Amino acid sequence: MPADKIQLLDKMFHPKSIAVVGASSSATETGWVKRLLDFGYKGKIYPINPKVKEIQALKAYANICDVPDPIDYAILNVPARSTLQALRDCVAKGVKFVHCYSAGFGEDGNEEGKRLESEMTKMIIGSSTRLLGPNCMGIYCPESGMTFNEGFPNEKGRIAVVSQSGAEASRLVLLCRDVNLSCSKVISYGNAADLDTPDFLEYLAQDKQTDIIALYVEGVKNGPTFMSVVRKCRAKKPVVIMGAGTTENGARAALAHTASVTWSQETWNAFFKQTGAIPALTTDETADIIQGLTRIRKMNGQRIAIIGRGGGIGVVATDICERAGLKVPPFSKETQSKLREIRPDAGAGLRNPVEPKLGMEGATEFYLRGLPIIDADTETDIILIHMALDIYGGNAPDLMQTMSESAYALCAAVDSIKKPLAVAIFTGGRPETVLAAAAARDILTKAGIAVFSGVESAARAIAGIQNIKSPKVSKYEILNFFERTGSKSQEIISPDGTSTIRNCKYSRLNDG
Amino acid sequence: MPADKIQLLDKMFHPKSIAVVGASSSATETGWVKRLLDFGYKGKIYPINPKVKEIQALKAYANICDVPDPIDYAILNVPARSTLQALRDCVAKGVKFVHCYSAGFGEDGNEEGKRLESEMTKMIIGSSTRLLGPNCMGIYCPESGMTFNEGFPNEKGRIAVVSQSGAEASRLVLLCRDVNLSCSKVISYGNAADLDTPDFLEYLAQDKQTDIIALYVEGVKNGPTFMSVVRKCRAKKPVVIMGAGTTENGARAALAHTASVTWSQETWNAFFKQTGAIPALTTDETADIIQGLTRIRKMNGQRIAIIGRGGGIGVVATDICERAGLKVPPFSKETQSKLREIRPDAGAGLRNPVEPKLGMEGATEFYLRGLPIIDADTETDIILIHMALDIYGGNAPDLMQTMSESAYALCAAVDSIKKPLAVAIFTGGRPETVLAAAAARDILTKAGIAVFSGVESAARAIAGIQNIKSPKVSKYEILNFFERTGSKSQEIISPDGTSTIRNCKYSRLNDG
Repeated sequence: MPADKIQLLDKMFHPKSIAVVGASSSATETGWVKRLLDFGYKGKIYPINPKVKEIQALKAYANICDVPDPIDYAILNVPARSTLQALRDCVAKGVKFVHCYSAGFGEDGNEEGKRLESEMTKMIIGSSTRLLGPNCMGIYCPESGMTFNEGFPNEKGRIAVVSQSGAEASRLVLLCRDVNLSCSKVISYGNAADLDTPDFLEYLAQDKQTDIIALYVEGVKNGPTFMSVVRKCRAKKPVVIMGAGTTENGARAALAHTASVTWSQETWNAFFKQTGAIPALTTDETADIIQGLTRIRKMNGQRIAIIGRGGGIGVVATDICERAGLKVPPFSKETQSKLREIRPDAGAGLRNPVEPKLGMEGATEFYLRGLPIIDADTETDIILIHMALDIYGGNAPDLMQTMSESAYALCAAVDSIKKPLAVAIFTGGRPETVLAAAAARDILTKAGIAVFSGVESAARAIAGIQNIKSPKVSKYEILNFFERTGSKSQEIISPDGTSTIRNCKYSRLNDG
Repeated sequence: MPADKIQLLDKMFHPKSIAVVGASSSATETGWVKRLLDFGYKGKIYPINPKVKEIQALKAYANICDVPDPIDYAILNVPARSTLQALRDCVAKGVKFVHCYSAGFGEDGNEEGKRLESEMTKMIIGSSTRLLGPNCMGIYCPESGMTFNEGFPNEKGRIAVVSQSGAEASRLVLLCRDVNLSCSKVISYGNAADLDTPDFLEYLAQDKQTDIIALYVEGVKNGPTFMSVVRKCRAKKPVVIMGAGTTENGARAALAHTASVTWSQETWNAFFKQTGAIPALTTDETADIIQGLTRIRKMNGQRIAIIGRGGGIGVVATDICERAGLKVPPFSKETQSKLREIRPDAGAGLRNPVEPKLGMEGATEFYLRGLPIIDADTETDIILIHMALDIYGGNAPDLMQTMSESAYALCAAVDSIKKPLAVAIFTGGRPETVLAAAAARDILTKAGIAVFSGVESAARAIAGIQNIKSPKVSKYEILNFFERTGSKSQEIISPDGTSTIRNCKYSRLNDG
C-alpha cells in the first residue's frame, strides 16, 4: 500500500474533527455526539442539525458547509432519502471520510435503494472524500476515542476487527473484553460501496499497533484481490476469517443484510487452504482463536495432555480433542510412574487424561506437583486443564474464595512451565458458579493464561492456531478451483486478470 | 421385563433401608450417611464401621451381618482390597442391592483389579444380591430421597439418566436444574460388572414416572441385546444417547475409566439410524435435546422463522440452522407485507430472519404484534427467538429489570401462539449480563418455554428432536453392518444369535 494511502487511512482512525450530520437533539438519549463525548474523543465535534442551536453544550450548525474549520470525518445519521444531499455537502466541504450509518440502500432489495447507493458511489469519484458504508457502525479506535458502542472498553490492545456486521463486531469486542483482551482498531463497514476489506487489510498488515486481524465477511467483491491481500497480511500476522452466508438461506439473509453476494463453504475451504488464513464458523469461535493466538505459546506438535477431575469428563474431553484433529496419546512410562508417586491410588487414571485429587486443594496440589511432571513428558506438546466447576465445587459455599485461590496457585505454577497451556472452565448456568468462574477467569487471563468456556472451545482454538500454514498453491490453482466448482460459483475474469466470484443462487430480483 | 424383575429394580430406587459399609466417622465431612440424611432419605440408615459406636447420631454396627433388620441396599465405601469380604457379608445378609462405590477394579488395568471384579461377579451368582458398579456413584432418586451429590435438587421430574460416568451424570442433572427440569431416576453404574444398561432401560421403558431417557455409555457388552432394548424403549419414549470413547484415544481413556471396550462413531451412527435413538456428542448437547423434547411442541416440518436484533447475527443464525440440517426459507409474501405494516422501515430485513425494533421495548412490542403474524406464516414451522444480550442490553444499568419484564411479555405472548418456539439467549461472560440472562431464563423456563445458551445449542436441539424416527432396518442389517465394518469392529456371534461387538484398538495389555 502506498505511503500516502496509509497516511490517509490513518486519518480515518485518528480524525482531528468529527461532524455528526443529523445529530440527535435529545439530552438524555445516547446519540453519536454524546457517545463520542462520553467515550473521550479528544478532537473537535461538530453537531449538524438545522433545528437546534446547541447539542450536548456544543454549537450546532445547520449544514456541514457552515462549519468554519476543516472536517476529517463525518457521520451521516439522516434518513436514506436525505443522504445524497448530505454526502454532496460533505464532498463540497472536502470531508476526508464519510461514514454513512444510515441504512436503506442496496440491502433493501428495491430499485430505489440500489439507485441511491450507486449515486453515492458515483458522487465521490474524483473527489477527496472516501465513503465508509453505507449501513454500518463505523470505527472503534480506543487510541483516538472513537466508538460506536458505549459499552466498549477504553483500553487499547493489539487486535483489529474488520466486519461487515456491526453486531458481530460488537460481540467480538465484548467477548474479547470478557477475557481481558483489547482492540487496536475495529471497522464495521456494511455494504462496502467504496472502502472495502482489501483497503482495511492493507492498512492493518503494516499497522504496528495490530498483532492479529479478525474478519467477518459476507461478500467478497473481487476474489483474487482479496486473496492477494489476505496473503500479504498472513506473511506478517495471523488472520482469522468468519465467512458468513455460506448456506443457501444464509446467502439470502446476507443479501438482505449488506447486499452481499456470498461464497459457498466449499469456496471458503479452498481459500483457507491456499492463504493460510484461519477459519472460524462463529464469533465465539473467532474470539477463542484470538485468545489462543495471543496466549497459547508456540506448539511443537498437536499432542495434548489433559488434566482435570472426572473420569467420564476426561473421556469426553479426549473425544472432543481428537475429533478436532488433535491427539491425546498416553504419557511416557516415566511420566506415568512419576505421577503414580503423587497419586498412588489413581489406577489407570494417570495415563492421560489424568485426574488430580478431589476438591480445590487436590487441584492446587496437582498444579504444584503434577504440572512439572507433565511439562517434562516427551509424548505430549500442550497441556489442557479442565475444570467442571458445575459439579466439582458447585455446592461449596466458599467457592468464590477457594476457586480464586486455586487460580492464583495455577498462575504461580505456570510460571515455571515450558509447554503451552490452556484452561477450560465450565459452569452450567447457576449464578454463584458463574460468578466464581468469572473471578477465576479474570485472575488467570490477567496472568496471560488462556481460559475457555469449555473443552470444545479450547480444542477448536488449539486446532485453529495449529492450522497456521503458509499458502501452498498458486493463484492459478485457486482460479482453477473456482472454475472446477463452477456449478456453485461463477467467476468473471476480466482481461486485466481481475476477477469476481459469485456463488449465490439468489439475486436481488428473485429473492423471495 | 417380567413383573418380578420390575418390582425388584423398583426396590433399588426405593429401598426401605440403606447400609453404608465403611461409613465416614467424620462429623463435618459429607460422607454417604450425612448426604442421605441431609437430602431427606426417609428409610432406615445403618452405618457400618467397626471403630465407632455412632455416626451422625445413628447407631453404628461393626459388620453388616450385625444389623438386626433386613437391608435392601448397601453402599460399599471400603478400599478395593476389602470389597470381596464386604460383598460376601452383604450376600450372607441377603442384601438385595450392593452399590460398590469403590474403584480399583477392571478399570485399573492390572491383573489384581480384573481378578477382584471377576470374583465379585462370581460371588453373587445364585444369590439374591445384585451388584451396581463397581466404580460408580449409584442412585439419585428424589422420590425416595437417595442422592450421590449434595447439590442435586429435591424436586422430582420426568427425566431418567443412565450413565457409566458419575461426573457426566452429575453435570447432566445440574444442567437440567439450571433450566428448571428435574429427574425421576439417575443411575451411575460404572464398570457394570453385573447390572448393566439393558436392565435399567427395560425398567425405565415401563416406568410411568419417566418421559425421557438419557444415556451416557462407554461400553456395550452385548450389541444385539442393547439394540433390542433401546428399540423397546424407543417405542414408548425418546432415548438420547451419548456414546463416549469413539475416538482412538477416547477409547483408551474409556478403558482406563470403566474398563469398557467402546464403539467407533461409525458403529454408533449405524445404531442411531436403526434404532431411532437420538445421538448427542456432549453432555451439554444431551441437556439441550432433553429441553427440546420437553418444551418444544411437535413440529410439522423443519422450516425455521428467526427473530432477533442484529443483521449479521441473523445471517450467522441462519447459517448455523442450515448447517444443522434445518431450513430458514423466506416468509410468505403475505407475512412479509403484514410485517412491513409494523416495521415500515426495515427494508429487506423482514423476509426471515426478521429484526424487531431496537431495545427491550422493541423486542416486547414485536412479541405482541409480530409473533402472531409469524405464527400464521405458511412457509415456516417453528419460531426461534435469539437475544444477543451481550450487545443489545449489555450496557443498560437496569438490564435485570427490563430483561425480566420483556421475558414476562414473551410468556404472555406465547400463550396464544400455535407454532413450536425456542429462545436462545447469549451473554458473553460479563457477570451483570449473565445474571440478567439467568433471571430471564428462569422466568421463561418456568413458563415452559425452551431457553438455550446460543443459536448453536438451539439448532442442535431442534435438529436432534427432528431426528426421532422409527427404526428402519432389521436386526439382520445391523449385524451385517458390523460385519462390513469389520476392520473397525469385531463381532462375535454365538450360535443362539447373541453377539458382542468390539472395535477397540487397545486391550488392557497393550494400553500404553
